Amino acid sequence: MLYLIGLGLGDATDITVKGLQAVKSCSRVYLEAYTSILTVGKEALEEYYGKQLILADRDLVEQGADQILEDADVTDVAFLVVGDPFGATTHSDLVLRAVNAGIPYKVIHNASVMNAVGCCGLQLYNFGETVSVVFWTETWRPESFYDKICKNRTAGLHTLCLLDIKVKEQSIENMMRGKKIYEPPRFMTVNQAADQLIQVIQSRKEEGEELGMTEDTVCVGVARLGSDEQKIRVGTLNQLVSCDLGAPLHSLVITGRLHPLEVDMLRVNAEPNALENLHMIDSSTYTS
Amino acid sequence: MLYLIGLGLGDATDITVKGLQAVKSCSRVYLEAYTSILTVGKEALEEYYGKQLILADRDLVEQGADQILEDADVTDVAFLVVGDPFGATTHSDLVLRAVNAGIPYKVIHNASVMNAVGCCGLQLYNFGETVSVVFWTETWRPESFYDKICKNRTAGLHTLCLLDIKVKEQSIENMMRGKKIYEPPRFMTVNQAADQLIQVIQSRKEEGEELGMTEDTVCVGVARLGSDEQKIRVGTLNQLVSCDLGAPLHSLVITGRLHPLEVDMLRVNAEPNALENLHMIDSSTYTS
Repeated sequence: MLYLIGLGLGDATDITVKGLQAVKSCSRVYLEAYTSILTVGKEALEEYYGKQLILADRDLVEQGADQILEDADVTDVAFLVVGDPFGATTHSDLVLRAVNAGIPYKVIHNASVMNAVGCCGLQLYNFGETVSVVFWTETWRPESFYDKICKNRTAGLHTLCLLDIKVKEQSIENMMRGKKIYEPPRFMTVNQAADQLIQVIQSRKEEGEELGMTEDTVCVGVARLGSDEQKIRVGTLNQLVSCDLGAPLHSLVITGRLHPLEVDMLRVNAEPNALENLHMIDSSTYTS
Repeated sequence: MLYLIGLGLGDATDITVKGLQAVKSCSRVYLEAYTSILTVGKEALEEYYGKQLILADRDLVEQGADQILEDADVTDVAFLVVGDPFGATTHSDLVLRAVNAGIPYKVIHNASVMNAVGCCGLQLYNFGETVSVVFWTETWRPESFYDKICKNRTAGLHTLCLLDIKVKEQSIENMMRGKKIYEPPRFMTVNQAADQLIQVIQSRKEEGEELGMTEDTVCVGVARLGSDEQKIRVGTLNQLVSCDLGAPLHSLVITGRLHPLEVDMLRVNAEPNALENLHMIDSSTYTS
């Protein structure tokens, strides 16, 4: 049996009881380590489970899936995923390989950023399509996330922005030289995402485009969602450029039309210095 | 401290380890019992936790919140919610009351239908706004869910339909007589939801409206999501009208534009008799 087990969003104890029982029963346990992270590392999980974990990076999952699935028809293998196995990142490819090899699989769900973000006070019902914001490079500056946000806002909907993670990336130089030397991991912060968004807004403004959102649109910065160190900051996009939400992971929410109850909840989660900004939302329209 | 604890979607063991520890430490534990259900009842949970649970129906949560929060500044009180506390149903009102009363609160997240539905093979990224489908009555037949589904489909997005739950409802007769006699609980099935949708489609067709979805649109019926008795059936809307997915809860997904990998995953989850229908999706456009 292949178990796909969600670890939730905080630390080792955010696994479900069912998930923990499955981990303990498995002969091999892989930890997917390239699409998300917990607030604790591999060692803390190993100690908590009383099991050795095998780190599964992108190479192993995408090219070494046969290795992960080896003997899974006669023994139990666990594949651990931060959040939910079918949350922000799906592992459809691994599941399909298991199915094609006649290996049964079982999913043990857990919280994902896709649902836990509701704790910021915005109702999940009112979210539109989720977008990804990637690190821009000198030559690659995709802006499609901005257009999706605007489309959601036109429909009155909020947008969850998942922020880029670069783990085990090679520099172009090392890649060209065939050197397997990896850059330190990078996790996009709320500030960086807000900054990229403002750059898009400014360039669209120069092009004379009608803006679907502005520097004054109310946004929510979320850090370490679901952990004891969770931090939520509510402010205009402009305010969030200079906020410091600390260690990863970060996510950013762009609000759409705000319901009065959502405004009340945003107040609860707002940092004191962001409250003055909330007065703006109190205006007749409940949108910025 | 007020703990809002998600129970996940299956049985007693789907609670997180952190959640279970919190339940055991609380002096009073409420079970929210009107927006969702697990595959096991109150008694099974009580036995598993070694704790008595107080059933919290809509009246208690909406009118007796002070009772729930009593002494929560000096003792620990848990409020258990099937799925995630901020998933499909938010309990913002209870949180706001706690905050206003100076009572600290803590959320322990878990899987929600809003993220676990990803296991049907459709990517969460590609979902638009979630809709609710309510039981029609003779005099109240709202159709707004259909328009939202069409809006999502126009944007190429899938739609999760949350199906109505009627718990502790009074008949109009008993309500008028002031008799506190309650009807048996009702949970909308995939068939019932599909039937209401088809009625809307037919009436819109008669009005000569251009249809955003038809009886041949590929849909996914999901029952007891996240439990060991989970059942997923893929078929056209027409096919789902006559399927039997068994005990509650049910959800329905209306597909938008399908990615080839999503089609492969739908195949995995499809019942044998629904596979023939999937051939249709194989056509050039990957939409029905």
